[in-house]
Amino acid sequence: MSAPRDTATQYISHADLVVLLQQVFQRHGTSPEVAQVLAENCAGAERDGAHSHGVFRIPGYVSTLASGWVDGRAVPVVEDVAPGFVRVDAANGFAQPALAAARELLLEKVRSAGIAVLAIRNSHHFAALWPDVEPFAYEGLVALSVVNSMTCVVPHGAERPLFGTNPIAFAAPRAGADPIVFDLATSAMAHGDVQIAARKGEHLPAGGGVDREGRPTCDPKAILDGGALLPFGGHKGSALSMMVELLAAALTGGNFSFEFDWSQHPGAKTPWTGQLIIVIDPARSAGRDFAERSQSLVTQMQGVGLQRLPGDRRHRQRADSLVNGIPLSSDELRQLRELAGH
Amino acid sequence: MSAPRDTATQYISHADLVVLLQQVFQRHGTSPEVAQVLAENCAGAERDGAHSHGVFRIPGYVSTLASGWVDGRAVPVVEDVAPGFVRVDAANGFAQPALAAARELLLEKVRSAGIAVLAIRNSHHFAALWPDVEPFAYEGLVALSVVNSMTCVVPHGAERPLFGTNPIAFAAPRAGADPIVFDLATSAMAHGDVQIAARKGEHLPAGGGVDREGRPTCDPKAILDGGALLPFGGHKGSALSMMVELLAAALTGGNFSFEFDWSQHPGAKTPWTGQLIIVIDPARSAGRDFAERSQSLVTQMQGVGLQRLPGDRRHRQRADSLVNGIPLSSDELRQLRELAGH
Repeated sequence: MSAPRDTATQYISHADLVVLLQQVFQRHGTSPEVAQVLAENCAGAERDGAHSHGVFRIPGYVSTLASGWVDGRAVPVVEDVAPGFVRVDAANGFAQPALAAARELLLEKVRSAGIAVLAIRNSHHFAALWPDVEPFAYEGLVALSVVNSMTCVVPHGAERPLFGTNPIAFAAPRAGADPIVFDLATSAMAHGDVQIAARKGEHLPAGGGVDREGRPTCDPKAILDGGALLPFGGHKGSALSMMVELLAAALTGGNFSFEFDWSQHPGAKTPWTGQLIIVIDPARSAGRDFAERSQSLVTQMQGVGLQRLPGDRRHRQRADSLVNGIPLSSDELRQLRELAGH
Repeated sequence: MSAPRDTATQYISHADLVVLLQQVFQRHGTSPEVAQVLAENCAGAERDGAHSHGVFRIPGYVSTLASGWVDGRAVPVVEDVAPGFVRVDAANGFAQPALAAARELLLEKVRSAGIAVLAIRNSHHFAALWPDVEPFAYEGLVALSVVNSMTCVVPHGAERPLFGTNPIAFAAPRAGADPIVFDLATSAMAHGDVQIAARKGEHLPAGGGVDREGRPTCDPKAILDGGALLPFGGHKGSALSMMVELLAAALTGGNFSFEFDWSQHPGAKTPWTGQLIIVIDPARSAGRDFAERSQSLVTQMQGVGLQRLPGDRRHRQRADSLVNGIPLSSDELRQLRELAGH
């Protein structure tokens, strides 16, 4: 690019960012319905300061749509298979519209059966995972989700990569406060964070990855250029990553992280796998109200010196963004407007 | 003890060890039904080489029963609360008889609803967690369980202990082979392993624990003597440990790891908390047979150089024990026979 970089910060309201991103998605090949879901997801991540899954992802979405790898107009097919089991064929579309299409049926089942599972297959997930579970907590439910991705993590004790970054996300309601929410890659680092470090020219903490020869490295470019990530926490994180493959792929009918081949689709970035969401209604529990109990756990955690809960930073940034607008650099905003055809 | 230690190895059949342990449990205050369940659990762990949860635990069971802390004659109360939700009040007894009492109802619900959850409360769990999930995998089901324990783990970013070792166990069927099973403490080390290291006078790997002043230590005795464990994998393991507190205690109506007080019961060793088990029927999944799919994942894991799967060592030791008997030292066997009143 010939223009000098303009890193001055501008502020855009959440509603305006959603509209802008909707325009980007629709202009690059999604249906209005899919554009709506993805725009809200992506703007929400940016609003919450989750930059690795915010507007940073837009060029990847655009190049993937251009490559013909994903169907931006896919209409998910929801199947009601049992009193606690919903399946969705995402029809080679994105996972978030599949979840949106199945959400009401899933909620009905959770309320009547006490627990229900949503098995999404044939789906592309290119976003953070916490936005998929957090809304359930605001409805008083407990939710757990896993999604597998693309081969980039070496199983503990193995020599070459096989697993994806395979995150686990969890959300639970809390009385009188924002829910407890976490979203953790079972890799030592999230892929988006490696990409951001590479772009910024930063080094990574030790123990996160290997280069193309399998040697430990702290250079994000060496990890991205034929290298691989390692699981977090040694054999334990590796076992959890394996569990994510089994739940998100084998149990849904989706692809394992190593099973898809996008080599004929240059520009494709979105893993074509599966996703599992388990939702439980704590109103069926014995004893005191769940949200009161989770709040009492938080009080104790603070009592032993914990300064910050999982999800706290996002909730604080969210509150700030809703008052002051979402900060973006002038360059980012200009690029988004260009992509939207302004 | 005045007698010299006799560490010569003797071999006892699994069936004989079960009978011997039944006698121990019954003689020390359990009902025949509870003795049966605990003896099979404990003998199974020893058979599989899981020494930290095998006969090593018997003195702890015995002192706990003697202290009046647990009710060895408790009759669990099973409640059918929804098409996918079973609750059990373990009535201040052990968790394993509560699971056994609810098992048939849970299986019925899994088969009809596709997923079901068992919420056990008012229960004591002093055993390994994998024996609770593995049998479901032999029935073609996928099972996940969590149990909280007793304050001994410092949450990441906090100063003092709050969480238990809070394990997560998972089991999934595999075509033509033993199931995939793992059982991992969300602490850097399992409490039983710290006790065994202390007894043997061994040092622990770095990063596992702190002494009573909060300083990092590799001395198991310093951890047991007013010190504490750390979570595995930093903030991620800590988040999972918090999730276990929420699922195993808040969602069941059981105690958090910090809520019970056994100070009036010297000799008490069994955490009085709760346990959650989620079981899913993969026959409801789309696509190819789950067990075939999990076997194909294993094949790929071996293809990238993995030598040993989670659960492999136990399954190999089990096969060996069933042929050659379970190795115990003469001392261990003599002590068990004394406890059984022989």
